[in-house]
Amino acid sequence: MLVLTMWDRPQLDPNSGTPLYRQLYDHFRRAIEIGNLKSGQKLPATRELAGMLGLNRTTVSAAYEILETEGFIAGHVGRGSFVTGTAAPAAKDWGALLRPNRVLETRSGEPVEISFAASRPSSGLFPLEALEQSCREALARGGVSILQLGSPGGYEPLRRYLADEARREGVLSEGDDLIVTNGCQQALDLFSRSLLSPGDHVVVEDPVYPGVKNLFTEADLRLTGLPVGESGIDLDLLEAAIEREKPRAVVVTSNFQNPTGRTMGLDARARLVRLARRSGAVLIENDIYGGLRYRGEAALAIKSIDEAGGTVLLRSFSKIAFPGLRVGWAIGPRPLIGRMKQAKQLTDLHTDQLSQAVLLRFAESGRLEDHRRRVLEAGAERLRAVLDACRAYLPPGTRFTEPEGGMNLWVSLPDPLDAGELLPRAEREGVSYLPGKYFAVSRPEPGGLRLSFAGLEPEKIERGVRILGGIFSAELERVRAARSLEPEPAMV
Amino acid sequence: MLVLTMWDRPQLDPNSGTPLYRQLYDHFRRAIEIGNLKSGQKLPATRELAGMLGLNRTTVSAAYEILETEGFIAGHVGRGSFVTGTAAPAAKDWGALLRPNRVLETRSGEPVEISFAASRPSSGLFPLEALEQSCREALARGGVSILQLGSPGGYEPLRRYLADEARREGVLSEGDDLIVTNGCQQALDLFSRSLLSPGDHVVVEDPVYPGVKNLFTEADLRLTGLPVGESGIDLDLLEAAIEREKPRAVVVTSNFQNPTGRTMGLDARARLVRLARRSGAVLIENDIYGGLRYRGEAALAIKSIDEAGGTVLLRSFSKIAFPGLRVGWAIGPRPLIGRMKQAKQLTDLHTDQLSQAVLLRFAESGRLEDHRRRVLEAGAERLRAVLDACRAYLPPGTRFTEPEGGMNLWVSLPDPLDAGELLPRAEREGVSYLPGKYFAVSRPEPGGLRLSFAGLEPEKIERGVRILGGIFSAELERVRAARSLEPEPAMV
Repeated sequence: MLVLTMWDRPQLDPNSGTPLYRQLYDHFRRAIEIGNLKSGQKLPATRELAGMLGLNRTTVSAAYEILETEGFIAGHVGRGSFVTGTAAPAAKDWGALLRPNRVLETRSGEPVEISFAASRPSSGLFPLEALEQSCREALARGGVSILQLGSPGGYEPLRRYLADEARREGVLSEGDDLIVTNGCQQALDLFSRSLLSPGDHVVVEDPVYPGVKNLFTEADLRLTGLPVGESGIDLDLLEAAIEREKPRAVVVTSNFQNPTGRTMGLDARARLVRLARRSGAVLIENDIYGGLRYRGEAALAIKSIDEAGGTVLLRSFSKIAFPGLRVGWAIGPRPLIGRMKQAKQLTDLHTDQLSQAVLLRFAESGRLEDHRRRVLEAGAERLRAVLDACRAYLPPGTRFTEPEGGMNLWVSLPDPLDAGELLPRAEREGVSYLPGKYFAVSRPEPGGLRLSFAGLEPEKIERGVRILGGIFSAELERVRAARSLEPEPAMV
Repeated sequence: MLVLTMWDRPQLDPNSGTPLYRQLYDHFRRAIEIGNLKSGQKLPATRELAGMLGLNRTTVSAAYEILETEGFIAGHVGRGSFVTGTAAPAAKDWGALLRPNRVLETRSGEPVEISFAASRPSSGLFPLEALEQSCREALARGGVSILQLGSPGGYEPLRRYLADEARREGVLSEGDDLIVTNGCQQALDLFSRSLLSPGDHVVVEDPVYPGVKNLFTEADLRLTGLPVGESGIDLDLLEAAIEREKPRAVVVTSNFQNPTGRTMGLDARARLVRLARRSGAVLIENDIYGGLRYRGEAALAIKSIDEAGGTVLLRSFSKIAFPGLRVGWAIGPRPLIGRMKQAKQLTDLHTDQLSQAVLLRFAESGRLEDHRRRVLEAGAERLRAVLDACRAYLPPGTRFTEPEGGMNLWVSLPDPLDAGELLPRAEREGVSYLPGKYFAVSRPEPGGLRLSFAGLEPEKIERGVRILGGIFSAELERVRAARSLEPEPAMV
């Protein structure tokens, strides 16, 4: 019994975006679903149908294979294919299959005109021409070696360049090695994969960059968050935490911490090294912002104080140059970096070499330094603008940090304001920021928020903070007015 | 008591590669170690020493901080710094700290003239000029958006391009999404982080690409390796393994499997989908080599047969274009890809955008297709050359696969030859390959080895296999001669 009557001859369109075998599959599936083809009916043989429709026989076979896989037909060797049913298989229950997601994601609402939400450089300062020139020169010099499979440790000419710079600064000594990573985030991941096991204790700053908190949470580590004061992570609390928890690692940001903007002084750095050394904990010095100092004097890198080799230093091109090019590096004791290279090979073989070669050329040629000079000039202006605006517009009782560089400062609104609750109102007025909850490890600060100022021009910074100040002040007045109306409680 | 007499006045060189504070530190450390400065002696105050040496006071403070951190001196507030001892702190015992490495690494010996060891494209075919042009055009079109912080899902113009291509091929349907990764290796890692937990069962091919085996071993998964026959992974054994072990995932290579070069036929693909579906296992279709078919006809992607959405398809530019640029992609059910984007954000934020934009331009402009045509021509020649040479030179009793594309074929030497033992001899004669042990999951094949032919010109392939054939044949003769001298065992 041949089921292919004239009225259900498939209308196939070879010029459609959908492949022919899939059009044929769709045709039969629909015919079965609406009952034009019924259970038990036989389909034409593939050769026969192919001839009839002027198709390649493999096209017909492909359609039949999918129909069979989906449970619409069954093939019997020597007898042909028969319609069996109309039930397509149920979709997988991915909710039950996937690993639970324990990360609080920043949900970006509608795009706003003035966003203080992203800690990233100013697109307006990107030197496209200098970059294009660096591309051309990099390809001319590196040639096909850039395009060929590379090494987990990094593109060798870049590794050598970075190692020489590090030696001159005193952050790479005899027993050290250097690995190129996809930015600092991957360096943290590789470190975690090399040294840490589920259940291990790690001390971090609180508030902290969400990429640290989320990565370690997903790796099932136990996090202790310690507050960040004028001189960085609280070292008295760290001393106690080290006693109590014997952490495997302590992760700190030496310069312009994200989100607080705070910097550790030399004394604090030296004490930190001594504390970590006594306890056997490995120190991670995340120094992604160190190149962005707008005023004041830089302190020695923690890595350069730690002669005995218990510190890993993380740096990156992403804040001083371009976050879209994912190139950072880690410097630390050879055995640890060696293990990180093995982890790197498993996670993605090696870092992209085109960007490594281009950034090398960009740096060697002096263009990076030119660019950084412009970025520092703009950054100084923007920092002044955000501090002036905070002083001028935020309601009395508000505290904010006064960083000397980087991209962020931390605002603590007076009680009982809640930065998370006020965000939608700010977004409606065209301004956004990140409230404290994204950064909190174990001490939530409802009034805390991060202002990332580096990507905005001074005029927008001023306007944005003025709008925020208006919202915060109005809310504060409303709350206080409501409170003053509350009846005086009885004395008991 | 001022210890700084004339004879130990530090000789500092501001033009040396070593920073001044470190030169000063080195000076004092040496003085203490050789006994010129003794325990209890007082060091000059930082201000005093700075004045004496014409240095910035922070330079002296830095040197003192390191001396103190390293345990050579101790500071007492108001009294100054005193020498305390000569013992620098012991270096960390990294062997005890680091996570154990369970990966068998390929140790590259001396570089050889003819290396069949790496599954990578031919550098000689890389079109540098076309790539440079693509760089220029990509920057002109994408502008600063390429350089700015990107999205975990990928550079949007590339994602759209790849998604359109995938829709036309029938491998991306309604419920699917696409994520750009740093090559297929990272897609495997993100998949593992999204779906698999320590102890989970995963079925893989055996022999298999070491990057699969090593990644899953380090993730503490339980691997079942199933042999790879003419039509890919053994489906009868898979059916039994699925019954027995309820694997969470099955990872297969649909085309030109690494290391065997084998390809699954359409029937095998459809049966695989049915098996995986019945068991609830997620299918990973690693199709990194699919674009490199030198002869014969391609079968439908497994992904396109699996209408119910239990398959993830992995592809990459790295074999058809440039492995040095780390850009691949994964296509699969939206909830799974969504979870992989979260994992991507934690592991390295997003894939490098310069390479994404350059490869997009390279593809859109038709240059990728031109390049691929040349690669296919060369590949066909090289495949013929390696098959001819294997037939001509390998000793009788040797078996080898006959792939229709890709970069690799698998050689099984006759008993009792051991490819690993013979490798040093081959390397001494200027030829290398990878012996079976690097690919074995649970069925070691001492006579197995992989020949990666795609990166070598036909003349070298012919010469290399001839040299290998000579070594293998000589060893076979030696063994057989030795055996024939053994006394006939008594009949019992």
